[in-house]
Amino acid sequence: MHNIAIVGYGNLGRGVELSLANNSDLNLVGIFTRREPSTVETISGKVFSMDDLLKKKNEIDVCILCGGSATDLPKQTPELTKYFNTVDSFDTHALIPEHFENVDQVAKESGHVSIISVGWDPGVFSLNRIMAEAILPKGKTITFWGKGVSQGHSDAIRRIEGVRDGIQYTIPNQEKIDAFKKGEVTELTTREKHTRECFVVLDGQADAERVKEEIITMPNYFSDYETTVHFVTQDVLEKDHKQGMPHGGKVIRVGHTSEVNQETIEYTLELDSNPEFTASVLVAYARACARLSEEGKVGALTVFDIAPKYIINEENRTLRKNSL
Amino acid sequence: MHNIAIVGYGNLGRGVELSLANNSDLNLVGIFTRREPSTVETISGKVFSMDDLLKKKNEIDVCILCGGSATDLPKQTPELTKYFNTVDSFDTHALIPEHFENVDQVAKESGHVSIISVGWDPGVFSLNRIMAEAILPKGKTITFWGKGVSQGHSDAIRRIEGVRDGIQYTIPNQEKIDAFKKGEVTELTTREKHTRECFVVLDGQADAERVKEEIITMPNYFSDYETTVHFVTQDVLEKDHKQGMPHGGKVIRVGHTSEVNQETIEYTLELDSNPEFTASVLVAYARACARLSEEGKVGALTVFDIAPKYIINEENRTLRKNSL
Repeated sequence: MHNIAIVGYGNLGRGVELSLANNSDLNLVGIFTRREPSTVETISGKVFSMDDLLKKKNEIDVCILCGGSATDLPKQTPELTKYFNTVDSFDTHALIPEHFENVDQVAKESGHVSIISVGWDPGVFSLNRIMAEAILPKGKTITFWGKGVSQGHSDAIRRIEGVRDGIQYTIPNQEKIDAFKKGEVTELTTREKHTRECFVVLDGQADAERVKEEIITMPNYFSDYETTVHFVTQDVLEKDHKQGMPHGGKVIRVGHTSEVNQETIEYTLELDSNPEFTASVLVAYARACARLSEEGKVGALTVFDIAPKYIINEENRTLRKNSL
Repeated sequence: MHNIAIVGYGNLGRGVELSLANNSDLNLVGIFTRREPSTVETISGKVFSMDDLLKKKNEIDVCILCGGSATDLPKQTPELTKYFNTVDSFDTHALIPEHFENVDQVAKESGHVSIISVGWDPGVFSLNRIMAEAILPKGKTITFWGKGVSQGHSDAIRRIEGVRDGIQYTIPNQEKIDAFKKGEVTELTTREKHTRECFVVLDGQADAERVKEEIITMPNYFSDYETTVHFVTQDVLEKDHKQGMPHGGKVIRVGHTSEVNQETIEYTLELDSNPEFTASVLVAYARACARLSEEGKVGALTVFDIAPKYIINEENRTLRKNSL
């Protein structure tokens, strides 16, 4: 049995709480929040102030960090890895190397394991990219996202001054998927593959033009994409865009094993709930984190560094017998 | 650079030879055969007698064993692992635990690494089964095989009077795939999962209707399946159906992350050449085998034990930057 703490309780933290209930070898120690705990409604009722996290240090094997990548995790993951094994879902692709180095240094100094950038992309999509490339070195890989809500991009919108609330959809292009599999195109820019569509609720007096400009020019998140921005009321946002958080996507590699033979590897996710699925991946890797720490491993790791046997609640002998 | 030997030269050995040419960090030392080397036509021309394998021991980092699972590998993998790091594609599911134990003992005694049961099933399909189950512990997994040629069913067609030649494809039943993904069914027998498609060349005067009737009503082979029969000329059969060894399949897991939300993970292979793809997986894991041996690892391993970073010819730092 491994003891898990949830740090931060938004959609992702709630997803982790739900996922832990599906994993009989993992025990929820508590949910730690910066809000006043009595105001936070959880499923388990195990909610504590962030100020109490260090006091429970000896009861916790792994902290799952459920903050955002924009401002929370760059500080929080290195800070908490001083005291805990950690798993995060840091997903600002361009800043992953820097985040990795920061966390790795702290993890090595303090003797902890931290698995960063866990989820589906980065995460299991990344794994499928490198495995497919390893198997078919002569080929092309492409990743399509959506249609679905991107939490990171929605968070980024909501951090803009004058924005009360917002949702961002990433939308793939089926024609381009088919063309790629047929070998008619071998390269597509992200801009060609997807568009981004934002539904934004403004604060009372905010300037719509300024907000729109800030969104479409935001580096890493929007500036390289064709982005549309719609301003809607809070009512419309709630009714039409907040009843679920579906997402998904595909990693496709088309390769040649010889002059005549083409092989295609396709990995597809169809998700009713983006945060619940991301949370489920975090929980599986929290298990790996605890096990690797028990084996004496220290430092920052990514999904690339972790043998699949570590993420599943099953004996390796049983896996060989039943699943190989 | 790692030095690789191919042991056995059928369709799989030839696939490995082709695959090594696509991997710049892997060098083919030679192909070792029980046949008289001068009678074996290879692409590289590097063909030697099995009797010379031990003489080249110091030039070889890993032997890729390309024999069959029925009689070759159960003896050959333990025997050669006394002297070499080895990778095999042992695929008799029921005997994997026994094979693993035999090879593990030899590998530990001799200080080698042996990765057994590498390919696509067992292999990357197995990996996808356990990873999907780890992420979605509350759910159902199903594996579909095909589209691919079934030798047994092709033989059965060819035994019918009036049939000159024929090929039978096993095809996943798309209706059943859709029903499983919708959660309408949670278990399917092999029989329910697949349909059968036959391409038949008639002898001169044979009655097509009678032959068709004999096929679709044949007990065990066809009568319980949805079967389609196409009559073609010998030319068409040779050109369109006998030039490759296509195969493929799907691993699908449908799970629930909460009461209301369903998540689907689907891994699909579409292969023009079953042996060339299997060979490409073997080659990627031969790289892992060499690297793990260099790190001091010993014993038998499976795909479950190997972190993805080991199978790809790329620095981990570069992977984090470009692929995570």
